[in-house]
Amino acid sequence: MPISGFPEWMPPQRMIEQRVIERIRTTFELYGYAPLETRSVEPLDTLLMKGETSKEVYVLRRLQADDNAKDDDQLGLHFDLTVPFARFVGENAGKLQFPFRRYQIQKVWRGERPQEGRYREFLQADIDVVNRGELPFHYDCEMPLVIGDALGGLPVPRVRIQVNNRKVCEGFYRGLGLEDTAQVLRTVDKLDKIGPARVAEVLIETVGATRAQADACLELAAISAEDGSFVDAVRKLGVEDPLLDEGLGELLRVVETAREHAPGLVTAELKIARGLDYYTGTVYETLLEGYERFGSVGSGGRYDNLATSGNERFPGVGYSIGVSRMLGVLFGQNALNISRSVPTCVLVALPNEEQRPACDRIAGALRKRGIPTEVAPTAAKFGKQIQYADRRGIPYVWFPGEPDTVKDIRSGDQVEADAAAWEPPAGDLRPVIAG
Amino acid sequence: MPISGFPEWMPPQRMIEQRVIERIRTTFELYGYAPLETRSVEPLDTLLMKGETSKEVYVLRRLQADDNAKDDDQLGLHFDLTVPFARFVGENAGKLQFPFRRYQIQKVWRGERPQEGRYREFLQADIDVVNRGELPFHYDCEMPLVIGDALGGLPVPRVRIQVNNRKVCEGFYRGLGLEDTAQVLRTVDKLDKIGPARVAEVLIETVGATRAQADACLELAAISAEDGSFVDAVRKLGVEDPLLDEGLGELLRVVETAREHAPGLVTAELKIARGLDYYTGTVYETLLEGYERFGSVGSGGRYDNLATSGNERFPGVGYSIGVSRMLGVLFGQNALNISRSVPTCVLVALPNEEQRPACDRIAGALRKRGIPTEVAPTAAKFGKQIQYADRRGIPYVWFPGEPDTVKDIRSGDQVEADAAAWEPPAGDLRPVIAG
Repeated sequence: MPISGFPEWMPPQRMIEQRVIERIRTTFELYGYAPLETRSVEPLDTLLMKGETSKEVYVLRRLQADDNAKDDDQLGLHFDLTVPFARFVGENAGKLQFPFRRYQIQKVWRGERPQEGRYREFLQADIDVVNRGELPFHYDCEMPLVIGDALGGLPVPRVRIQVNNRKVCEGFYRGLGLEDTAQVLRTVDKLDKIGPARVAEVLIETVGATRAQADACLELAAISAEDGSFVDAVRKLGVEDPLLDEGLGELLRVVETAREHAPGLVTAELKIARGLDYYTGTVYETLLEGYERFGSVGSGGRYDNLATSGNERFPGVGYSIGVSRMLGVLFGQNALNISRSVPTCVLVALPNEEQRPACDRIAGALRKRGIPTEVAPTAAKFGKQIQYADRRGIPYVWFPGEPDTVKDIRSGDQVEADAAAWEPPAGDLRPVIAG
Repeated sequence: MPISGFPEWMPPQRMIEQRVIERIRTTFELYGYAPLETRSVEPLDTLLMKGETSKEVYVLRRLQADDNAKDDDQLGLHFDLTVPFARFVGENAGKLQFPFRRYQIQKVWRGERPQEGRYREFLQADIDVVNRGELPFHYDCEMPLVIGDALGGLPVPRVRIQVNNRKVCEGFYRGLGLEDTAQVLRTVDKLDKIGPARVAEVLIETVGATRAQADACLELAAISAEDGSFVDAVRKLGVEDPLLDEGLGELLRVVETAREHAPGLVTAELKIARGLDYYTGTVYETLLEGYERFGSVGSGGRYDNLATSGNERFPGVGYSIGVSRMLGVLFGQNALNISRSVPTCVLVALPNEEQRPACDRIAGALRKRGIPTEVAPTAAKFGKQIQYADRRGIPYVWFPGEPDTVKDIRSGDQVEADAAAWEPPAGDLRPVIAG
């Protein structure tokens, strides 16, 4: 029986997912990110460092654990890849070269309540850069370019990255006279869920904002621009604060860099806050054009205080693509298809069981040149063997003979062929994905 | 802190692992196996179907589970990929095309006692073929060829596959007059651990074997051959049984097919039994030449009764490569190395921060042609930037100028270069793995 929150895809969807992962990984490596994989479990206290996610942890227990063996009681499955990465960096700081750039593509788990219908197991693809001491800001500018490049090469809808900077918000709230900036941020983060009127009410109730202060927060959150014009829009609100200035300068650099290298990719969107406590500057969200209503399919940000080792600090910036989430949305809308359900390009027909060794040799010759090939399961009538290929979308059936022939079962064209030389058109070699 | 049994590799080892996975996956696809990924968890009763593994299951619990919500109490992490696959086939039989050939490369978990020093999280790479009703035997012959092909293309020691057939053992024991063939099999399976004298004693004690019967079991287990001569060796022991005949015929086909398509790969080794209850015929083990003392790095076999759906039976045959186990052995012996610790082929030197956009454009032009490139983190002195490359094993540093030049920092050679046209030697494009 299916288990709620633990999706399983059929092979065609899995082939699409693999192609997506392959593109993401290749892109990450083109930018010099090194691969890393951390264990799936962390000590519970590492996972609970950030209180708000504690309810989402799955704890492990050995079925046959001795009553007095407490070791495993303290292990939980990781709920993201940033916390394990920060732990890894702190633990291995002496062995790593800084700045350390790594990518990590792994499953994560969240023990959500089943009735919420959310994924409880899903795949994330992360990049992060951390440095010892200080991390140059240009890495904040690089993140969206890498993500845009990775997803831009796929048959998925166009990606739009929304960027903000917590310093802008916190500086603005502080300059406005609101002290509990974290609470203001958390409230504004609910804007899309509860609407501006309710946000204003909550601000007035919980942080003691005046109506004018609440309105100013909403005006800030309403600012959105694809270029540097957001700076003037903020200035017009008349709030002054050094942290605000710093944040505006940083956000401007991200937007301007993206405009130069990837026009149309990035928007400054001042309502973006990101729920996680550990972000300290730039924050990112990712939307798919035409699928905005399904929410963000990737996010990240700058964290200056997550990774530590003794007295040392390892500030970082990272971005996480929600691979399962993105594909779940697109599969659900039938927006991604693949041309066959197996990798096989050629089925070698089997005239009779005695010829199996000869057919295996033909298959071997084709495979040696990179052409995925199967031999028919039984020496059934050729019509049935062609049906085997057809049902799986295998485009070619190979008939051993004097000479051999190969048939394109879509067009019916059949030509003489030599297993040591024949090649399919490039477009038929691998299954084709279409958006 | 490291957690016993949950290995974490540094990026160079992870790069090697990825290359190994890539080779395995590409090979599996060349043979037409379709990718599949099952969820990491199964209901506990699915996992416990085969009693002997029950002690190895990790059970999940939501940290914040309501006391009356029992749903998650019944989920455990899978301990192999065969049991989940059999469950998947039974569940989705109506949607799959049979024979169904799939591969699956995933983590599995075993809640071993920590003091045993074994992996508790590790990666497996499996292929299986299942069919509705009957599964042709030639798939038993294909399995070792696929595995030999996958691992043969890697810089790992030569692979030797040991094959046996449970029908040979069971038929032999039965023909010999021993009724509890399962118990005999389990005892003989301990041969390498406890030695022949002790095996004979246990057989006499537990299944009531005579000394002559026990000796005959040991003589059978001692038979080993790279060709069909094992058949005569068994016949000489003078035992007659129809199941023995069937098993010998099957085993002969596996050995003869391998001799034709991959000489030297397969040995008939009649002591191989495989602990798992679900195997019903062919069984496989895998050794690395020169590393035999570390034990098997892959195994599998024929299972006729594992997957079911209603009254239907889905017999299968499969093979599992223990990727973590194999790499753990080789890394532990320093038998695998890689030429750099990052994917980066070129570091673009940065004369000053103002030139970062120009340097980013050079990097972009190189990446567009598939050359992994980073821009230097800061505009430090060039000596320091070269050191950045050197410490990571990055072979080339690119100097923007009029004209641009690129320097091979290993040889010191520096030449004029155009980012739109320059290419590194093919051997430098990706990190090189050496055995």
